[in-house]
Amino acid sequence: MWSLLNLKSLQIFSIGQRLWRRTIKTKSLVYHRFGVPDEVVEMVEGELPDPGDKQLLIKIALAPINPYDLYNILGKFHTGSNKFPYTGGSEFVGEVVKTGTQYTPYVRGDIVIPLTLGSGAWTTYKLVNESDVFKVPNEVGLQEAATTAITACTAYRLLRDFVSLSEGDSVILSGANSAVGQLTLQLCKLWNLNAIGIVRDRDNVVNLKEDLKSLGATEILTDKEIDRTNLFENYPFLKPKLALDCIGGTIGSMIAQCLVKDGFMISYGEMSNEPVYAESNQFVMQENVFTGFSMIRWLDENMKLDKHIHMLDELMIQILRKNLIAPRMEMVPFEFYKVLPDPLKFVNMANRKFVFDMREEALDELVDSE
Amino acid sequence: MWSLLNLKSLQIFSIGQRLWRRTIKTKSLVYHRFGVPDEVVEMVEGELPDPGDKQLLIKIALAPINPYDLYNILGKFHTGSNKFPYTGGSEFVGEVVKTGTQYTPYVRGDIVIPLTLGSGAWTTYKLVNESDVFKVPNEVGLQEAATTAITACTAYRLLRDFVSLSEGDSVILSGANSAVGQLTLQLCKLWNLNAIGIVRDRDNVVNLKEDLKSLGATEILTDKEIDRTNLFENYPFLKPKLALDCIGGTIGSMIAQCLVKDGFMISYGEMSNEPVYAESNQFVMQENVFTGFSMIRWLDENMKLDKHIHMLDELMIQILRKNLIAPRMEMVPFEFYKVLPDPLKFVNMANRKFVFDMREEALDELVDSE
Repeated sequence: MWSLLNLKSLQIFSIGQRLWRRTIKTKSLVYHRFGVPDEVVEMVEGELPDPGDKQLLIKIALAPINPYDLYNILGKFHTGSNKFPYTGGSEFVGEVVKTGTQYTPYVRGDIVIPLTLGSGAWTTYKLVNESDVFKVPNEVGLQEAATTAITACTAYRLLRDFVSLSEGDSVILSGANSAVGQLTLQLCKLWNLNAIGIVRDRDNVVNLKEDLKSLGATEILTDKEIDRTNLFENYPFLKPKLALDCIGGTIGSMIAQCLVKDGFMISYGEMSNEPVYAESNQFVMQENVFTGFSMIRWLDENMKLDKHIHMLDELMIQILRKNLIAPRMEMVPFEFYKVLPDPLKFVNMANRKFVFDMREEALDELVDSE
Repeated sequence: MWSLLNLKSLQIFSIGQRLWRRTIKTKSLVYHRFGVPDEVVEMVEGELPDPGDKQLLIKIALAPINPYDLYNILGKFHTGSNKFPYTGGSEFVGEVVKTGTQYTPYVRGDIVIPLTLGSGAWTTYKLVNESDVFKVPNEVGLQEAATTAITACTAYRLLRDFVSLSEGDSVILSGANSAVGQLTLQLCKLWNLNAIGIVRDRDNVVNLKEDLKSLGATEILTDKEIDRTNLFENYPFLKPKLALDCIGGTIGSMIAQCLVKDGFMISYGEMSNEPVYAESNQFVMQENVFTGFSMIRWLDENMKLDKHIHMLDELMIQILRKNLIAPRMEMVPFEFYKVLPDPLKFVNMANRKFVFDMREEALDELVDSE
């Protein structure tokens, strides 16, 4: 397991107990108005006080750039008052570097991920309430931990919350190569569900298909193939009970048309910015239900409840068993947020999951003041 | 209340108890293959035996021509084997003219509507099992009774089964002038719900608006007005929790866009034969649910259960209290089924509810054989 303690600049920590100074410098990506992410986001330095009684000081290691974060910056779907500046980001993995003065089960070196979202993950240091984070087993890979709170949990809930799926049942998903898609394929394999993944046609799609099949896909079809496939005629048991869509438009509409009677079509994103269309027949006679899912909404209702903690426990066990690996990602050094061509543009344009990597951020501020 | 006993040809019934002959002639509209209704439907004569122990012989009075019946004839949505010939029709009101030999709570002159559907309503006489019909209070109007089993029940379930509506909540419906629409408007008024009805623009739409408002609509907008109305900005409490759509296409899509967060869009028909489209945002952020309703499906699951009987009881009470009147209808003499321009074409083309009227059908076959 990665640990700050392995970094040269932190080795000072191994020399007995020391005191911290009362404030610590932190760098954050913030925005003072809504707008195009790479225009409005800027890096600012700030100071954090020592953690209070029930607080933890976290050094963030990795923080993904999720579509949700980019929508937030655009102000899309924003409701309520504008309490600028906002710190970007939501999902992260970090290490406890200091605890409050009161007794706490946390110790320095513990790895945590957020239970609550929205307080900003794109920051080098972060003060959190003890009850707002989840302790990750030390053996869990950092990339896996970084993409559990939103990405893996989204895949988990999409498969669990809408239809009762038994072994051998089938799921169809668009954006099979997205981060949530990759986790969904793995969970399907784990739970013995057939997963039919849809990807946009591209160069070397054969390689992508093989990669996604190795993750757990039963079959991968391109948007050009789905319309003329006879997969569901040849193998009726592959007709999906659940369609998971993050694309919308023609692709979303086509996967919904593959559903069995009583099937559910769940929209959890809108990469294409195009509407889904549905024949009334799909509702009236096929008894399909179209609805949506947002992890943020789910957390609004279930945060810290048993089902939330249980899900995280279960995901951690499967990560430890190597049944779940992180989605393919590209690390972006935190300082390079504007230099690289598209970390702050929409993920679907980049076709890769960008993740801010703050592991090597200078930690000199942590030198004790004793 | 209308009764066969008032018809001259039936007055013979008032002369003491007589025996029937063992068979009775009946005329039915049947089809031997799926196809365009006015091409494949023909009238045939047949014979019915005396009712068995638990059977009733019914003389049909009125039988509406519902879109569902026309879809059946087209073979649209048909599944399973083809047991031709089929008798057309599903909804009816009829009078008991003979009972079986065993004890029965039914007596001659009782008015009944079907509990089960699909055995064909477009027929002059019909043998039914006692348990397959519902006795209508004698004071209930014949037109109201004729449109309860499917039309009024559909309106009732649409308002009851999807969202919990409290007094003052709002519903939006397309096809407000359809038969189900007219019943929906009346139930909304009865249950103190606001009803925003949408109709297609037409000549004299002002008159139609007034008529529908008199039935219970809070507001009637045309398809041209809905896009530019500021009704929901001016009166936010009118934003609907429930959208009921029998049209699809642009109208269906537009009424769905009026929904509050967490709202339900229910498709129960497809008059336009065009798909409904939905922005992913409606699912992901607005948490709307799109699904469908079909009375036939509902009956598959709930036929004769308490909730079925209770609904019919409640509707009958409201009809007796004059809170519900039948949708505007045009009577079609049974023999004229092919002569009139469009009884067997789709109802939406005609913009009227056609109802077969068999009250004056010759009843000479009923003369006893004693």
